[in-house]
Amino acid sequence: MSAESRVPERILRAIAAVEPPDPAWAQRAWVRQEQLTMPPGSLGRLLELSRQLAAIQRTETPRASPGLLAVFAADHGVAREAVSAYPQSVTARMMANFSARGAAINVITQSLDLGLQVADFGVIRPPGPQAKGLSFQRCSIREGTSNFLEGPAMSREEAFQAVGHGLQLASGWTGTHGYAVIGLGEMGIGSTTTAAVLIAALTGASAADVVGRGTGLDDQGLVRKREIVERALALHRPQCRDIWDWLARVGGFEILGLAGLAIGAARAHTLVVLDGVISTAAGLIAARLCPALAGSLVAAHLGPEPGHKVALDSLGLVPLLQLDLRLGEGTGAALAMPIVRAAADIMNGMATFESARVPGPVAERKSRQGRSD
Amino acid sequence: MSAESRVPERILRAIAAVEPPDPAWAQRAWVRQEQLTMPPGSLGRLLELSRQLAAIQRTETPRASPGLLAVFAADHGVAREAVSAYPQSVTARMMANFSARGAAINVITQSLDLGLQVADFGVIRPPGPQAKGLSFQRCSIREGTSNFLEGPAMSREEAFQAVGHGLQLASGWTGTHGYAVIGLGEMGIGSTTTAAVLIAALTGASAADVVGRGTGLDDQGLVRKREIVERALALHRPQCRDIWDWLARVGGFEILGLAGLAIGAARAHTLVVLDGVISTAAGLIAARLCPALAGSLVAAHLGPEPGHKVALDSLGLVPLLQLDLRLGEGTGAALAMPIVRAAADIMNGMATFESARVPGPVAERKSRQGRSD
Repeated sequence: MSAESRVPERILRAIAAVEPPDPAWAQRAWVRQEQLTMPPGSLGRLLELSRQLAAIQRTETPRASPGLLAVFAADHGVAREAVSAYPQSVTARMMANFSARGAAINVITQSLDLGLQVADFGVIRPPGPQAKGLSFQRCSIREGTSNFLEGPAMSREEAFQAVGHGLQLASGWTGTHGYAVIGLGEMGIGSTTTAAVLIAALTGASAADVVGRGTGLDDQGLVRKREIVERALALHRPQCRDIWDWLARVGGFEILGLAGLAIGAARAHTLVVLDGVISTAAGLIAARLCPALAGSLVAAHLGPEPGHKVALDSLGLVPLLQLDLRLGEGTGAALAMPIVRAAADIMNGMATFESARVPGPVAERKSRQGRSD
Repeated sequence: MSAESRVPERILRAIAAVEPPDPAWAQRAWVRQEQLTMPPGSLGRLLELSRQLAAIQRTETPRASPGLLAVFAADHGVAREAVSAYPQSVTARMMANFSARGAAINVITQSLDLGLQVADFGVIRPPGPQAKGLSFQRCSIREGTSNFLEGPAMSREEAFQAVGHGLQLASGWTGTHGYAVIGLGEMGIGSTTTAAVLIAALTGASAADVVGRGTGLDDQGLVRKREIVERALALHRPQCRDIWDWLARVGGFEILGLAGLAIGAARAHTLVVLDGVISTAAGLIAARLCPALAGSLVAAHLGPEPGHKVALDSLGLVPLLQLDLRLGEGTGAALAMPIVRAAADIMNGMATFESARVPGPVAERKSRQGRSD
């Protein structure tokens, strides 16, 4: 094994520094919830989210604001196999659209009072800086991965770089900026194919289990995409000695960047909200590299790509929303983030039965009286 | 029939003034959506919501902000049958809690940047005005309905009054305040029993189909609640000549007030977001009184009370969220309202493929080239 192929110390240290959510704080949060002026458990999954936040942040009064939605973009060599209904140039055009604040995620983050950060992890011919436009984080590894049907998508060193950039961005966003929750979004033509291969590789699912129509393939396109996933798995499996081999051989720059971001966020006790299949592939990678991180993830929604369900099941996550979203860009994660914000706020702002002098359930009071008789 | 039992002109006029959503505007919104920089249909139910808003407001660029959450509170005579895990005094205590901004709905509306209005439609011993507290709309018909196991819950005249108050509040909130979306919330011990009877009466469902545990009944309580619903239906059915007889005999002041609010909102081309089973019973009543209104309703979530699903099915509504909520107060409606806001905003803020110079799908461009060949 050559020196450059070893996992860098800074990545190993980051992984080792991630602490799992503390169940003692979830328990304390539950005790507090029982005192709040509502029937026990009556806010359902909102209360689960509150307890998860409490366990991650080690406090009964967690915060979920300000929230950040991060969009990482890159191109995929496999796009040359016509796995998308859209030409590869759309990735760069959409970067310009993000900068001009014209894309769905720009509007939705503004609508929901979330921060938005866009990073170029390897877009082909990325747009230059726009006057008054949203600026990008410059993390480009190279202008698009190689086609993984012809060889590795990237070198191990490039995979380390992509994860490292994600870790570094997480430091700034959780530190200086103080974001309490981070949603993972992405853009890149061909990315659902890459995500499908990664999910199959990491879970052992078959190509048929993970492949769907992406943003608009027809029947013929679907069959071709399945074949491509099968060929990629068959080509690279014999060469893969560890997870990093898989990540390099069939990964995407933006996906590995998001995995790094998730690890960095979890290290900083920050909840990570997953979006669609690509974002969830990144969450799966992060959890495989760093099992302690799994409890810091939330699934925002369930999209139509079969691999999304496979990855969520593997992570043990149940999505909050089912709105038939299949756009990506982090739109589903963004739509779930107000729910997370409300979950945090009820732990801070609600009165207790005692402070509001609201009687509890009759049965409970009777049994309390019984005990005092 | 006595003079007082006739439906007042102001209510009949309000019902007649409601216009259904205009499908031509939904179509125009769809054409616009196809031009926005995302794969066609890729925002799923968000796009359905945008089209519904467009059809209600008669514009391609609808708005869903500011949003209001209205909580109507009243007591129920049937609460004397011990149909709730909580004593009846909780209704008034929770009113005080709303005023002191300590309840879940206070925190959630603040968290989600929504307006909150609370109205007393007939609370027993309602709290007085609190210094610096949230003030109430005073719409009390009387301190709680009568027990509908012993006679009518209210007179027809009182039912008209409750609906009339709701209509009047809608005028102010959609007019002077300019709220673009209104969520329906409620508070009142015993209200799930009232809602169950109303839903059974209006849909023909059986007591077993509609009755659940409310905010925390045990098995014995559940059996008793079913019997009560059966007895109420059997007692009043022979006396009911029209829907208003049902509304008076087994209704609740706050539920009829919410039905009036829904009619008034629809008349003002304002989307109405339903919450749990009680709020949805109000939506069902409104749609039965005024079928043109049905297209102005959205279901926020699905709660555990079986009657909720019965009522939603009868209205043809599919809920946006499934978060295992069973609190009421409008909490589910509030949590869905940011999604509605985002649905409106994408129609206003997104770039088109042309303006952003983003290429559309390959197949489409090929067929366009084909046509020009």
